Amino acid sequence: MAEETEHLKELITGIAKQARAASLELATLDAAQKNRALEILADRLVAATGDLLAMNQKDLAAAKALELAPAMVERLTFTPERIAKMADGVRQVAALPDPVGEELERISRPNGLDIRKVRVPIGVVGIIFESRPNVTIDCAILCLKSGNAAILRGGKEAFHTNMALAEIIHEALTEAGINPLAVQLIPTTDRWALNELLKLDKYVHCIIPRGGETLIRFVAENSRIPVIKHYTGVCAIYIDAEADADMAESIVVNAKTDRVGVCNSIENLFIHRDVAASILPKLARAFEAKGVEMRVDHAAGRVLEKINAGGIAHGVPSIDYNYATEDDFYAEYLDYIIAVKLVDSVDDAIAAINLYGSAHSDGIVTGNEETAKRFMLGVDSATVYWNASTRFTDGYEFGLGAEIGISTDRLHARGPMGLRELCSYKYLIFGSGQVK
Amino acid sequence: MAEETEHLKELITGIAKQARAASLELATLDAAQKNRALEILADRLVAATGDLLAMNQKDLAAAKALELAPAMVERLTFTPERIAKMADGVRQVAALPDPVGEELERISRPNGLDIRKVRVPIGVVGIIFESRPNVTIDCAILCLKSGNAAILRGGKEAFHTNMALAEIIHEALTEAGINPLAVQLIPTTDRWALNELLKLDKYVHCIIPRGGETLIRFVAENSRIPVIKHYTGVCAIYIDAEADADMAESIVVNAKTDRVGVCNSIENLFIHRDVAASILPKLARAFEAKGVEMRVDHAAGRVLEKINAGGIAHGVPSIDYNYATEDDFYAEYLDYIIAVKLVDSVDDAIAAINLYGSAHSDGIVTGNEETAKRFMLGVDSATVYWNASTRFTDGYEFGLGAEIGISTDRLHARGPMGLRELCSYKYLIFGSGQVK
Repeated sequence: MAEETEHLKELITGIAKQARAASLELATLDAAQKNRALEILADRLVAATGDLLAMNQKDLAAAKALELAPAMVERLTFTPERIAKMADGVRQVAALPDPVGEELERISRPNGLDIRKVRVPIGVVGIIFESRPNVTIDCAILCLKSGNAAILRGGKEAFHTNMALAEIIHEALTEAGINPLAVQLIPTTDRWALNELLKLDKYVHCIIPRGGETLIRFVAENSRIPVIKHYTGVCAIYIDAEADADMAESIVVNAKTDRVGVCNSIENLFIHRDVAASILPKLARAFEAKGVEMRVDHAAGRVLEKINAGGIAHGVPSIDYNYATEDDFYAEYLDYIIAVKLVDSVDDAIAAINLYGSAHSDGIVTGNEETAKRFMLGVDSATVYWNASTRFTDGYEFGLGAEIGISTDRLHARGPMGLRELCSYKYLIFGSGQVK
Repeated sequence: MAEETEHLKELITGIAKQARAASLELATLDAAQKNRALEILADRLVAATGDLLAMNQKDLAAAKALELAPAMVERLTFTPERIAKMADGVRQVAALPDPVGEELERISRPNGLDIRKVRVPIGVVGIIFESRPNVTIDCAILCLKSGNAAILRGGKEAFHTNMALAEIIHEALTEAGINPLAVQLIPTTDRWALNELLKLDKYVHCIIPRGGETLIRFVAENSRIPVIKHYTGVCAIYIDAEADADMAESIVVNAKTDRVGVCNSIENLFIHRDVAASILPKLARAFEAKGVEMRVDHAAGRVLEKINAGGIAHGVPSIDYNYATEDDFYAEYLDYIIAVKLVDSVDDAIAAINLYGSAHSDGIVTGNEETAKRFMLGVDSATVYWNASTRFTDGYEFGLGAEIGISTDRLHARGPMGLRELCSYKYLIFGSGQVK
């Protein structure tokens, strides 16, 4: 056992050292050479469709034996169409502008020093992810394009598919004249190996965990390397007293039901007390139609009770709802459930969002600009919307052209992370003999 | 004992929660109110000179009893002049532009969404520092100006002085109508308390350790909160074959000897083999005059040997030098010692700097623009100089107006950190009912 962990340690240290060496080469490559590698990779992925499907079958067989959930098996499954789509994605990243070398600032000092702040790769980026094998290609190409060496650690469910993809990446890099160790897949999903990697702050500069909360928490607690976390979100919409009712309904229903299992869908709805009676009935029917369960606070419950009481006389079917506990407002359902609370003012809505939410994506629906501005200033979230669905928090929707994830941290990158967010910067200082 | 740690845990959690609440208020303050607090603080510091000196005496008495090194006692000592200077520093920060609210980017999407990326405070910043009490004021005012709540944990040597300073800060905040818990000093230097703080990622968003390597490593290894490290530096100058000899000498001597105990002074010197014989004699005499010991590789040693042999015939006193071990090139002397190695090319110099250095500040002296560009691209350091001393790596020299430190990390902030680097950003998205 001790021998085995010693072996793992050597393996991981070797990978990290080679990645560091490769990163120094990558940082000096021009865009053309990186793009050539991406074009070759796209072609090779399509050409290897048969081999990839065969390796994917191995993972699918193991998934069957392990009785994985159907949704998980579905995400794991390659088809010729999915492989073609993956190759298209690679070509799209090749077509994006190279972030490396972009000048961010220029400072001229009285002593004649000319200081330029330019974008450079971070160095070595470790990405820890689960299940979906197309993430392997996504991470590899975004790191390559941004000049970073990548160390990838995928989930065990996709192990064989990932190994096959890594092989194709190595071939493409080699053909393009790039050190193939610029992208390395850790050939084991052992938790010990991951733990070793997280100690190697001498060689690895950034860790991006993508996946479930348990994985992310494990990484954040054990890493000596800076981590950019990608937790999912507890998002909310606040319907203000001056909201357009139709717009409010449309935004809330979209933000809740367009896809329920994603980080930028909403879990909480706050409604100004003055408009609850007018907004809730139609909204409740819309939720009903979509199969969304409402969990409401006592104030909202009283409004619904009254509506139902009024409706009974006219033979209107009752609106269904349950009462929320305090915990419901902290919950990330990722399901057809929404917690509803009435508030007295925009300030109450701001306080509720800052209290219950996860500072991911939150929105206000209002026709009042002053109220909107107050909300946007006060809500401490990565993305704050005025009169739009929270579902737009996404690298593609932001026009970044690509996305490695959505950071829930506040340092370095916040919100959608594209190629630029995979970069650091350095200062180039041009002098003529200046001394201090 | 268990009771005591439980008490500490409660104390620290309380501080962190209060800081979080204060940070939400701070984030919405306008520049005028923050600046008013700074002006009041400056006045109060001067007015409290007598009290501060009295509290400082307590620390100095303890320092005497503990037989602290004279340099440390010197750094700990307040004088009326130092207090006045500190107050001036506070007024200077008040005069700087407010980074909060600055628009960083604007994206207009085809669907009509208007996306604005604006600078916002990080939230709650924990700063761990040692000995010098003026750091307490520096950190407090930079956090306040950038809208961050600060949790300060100073060294035990300055405990009484720091407590007195914290009291004055609270009074100034209160007088300016700002929540005084926006700046809190942890009223204990217990390591357990620090450890508790490092776990509170729910309330604290960033930790900045400033001090010795042991402290920084402890923080990096134990923190669940993102850390921006401030290690010191192993910096170098490379004298190219096409360097102006006088400029090279002036830059190298300045970068080594202007102040030896600072992070941006050099520890290594790399010289192109072709110019070693012409550059080394004068440079060695200059080092001699400043009391700098040269530790040279074998190639440089042979050159010096030959020079000495030639000089003996003419009665020239020998140049003193010692041979370097491999470890010498990794060493951070912070002393009157320099390690010297000959290299064959700019590429060798780049490789040596990337191998031995700490990616802090490195420079080339050359008249050849192509060589300089190759060096600036290839050297993977936060600041890379062409024909200037590395001693300019400093927030003030960069024109930032203030400095919380010099980050040796690659994420978020790299190199000198001013007010902007104490900020995060958020996206404000203006819609007209868009749904996905």
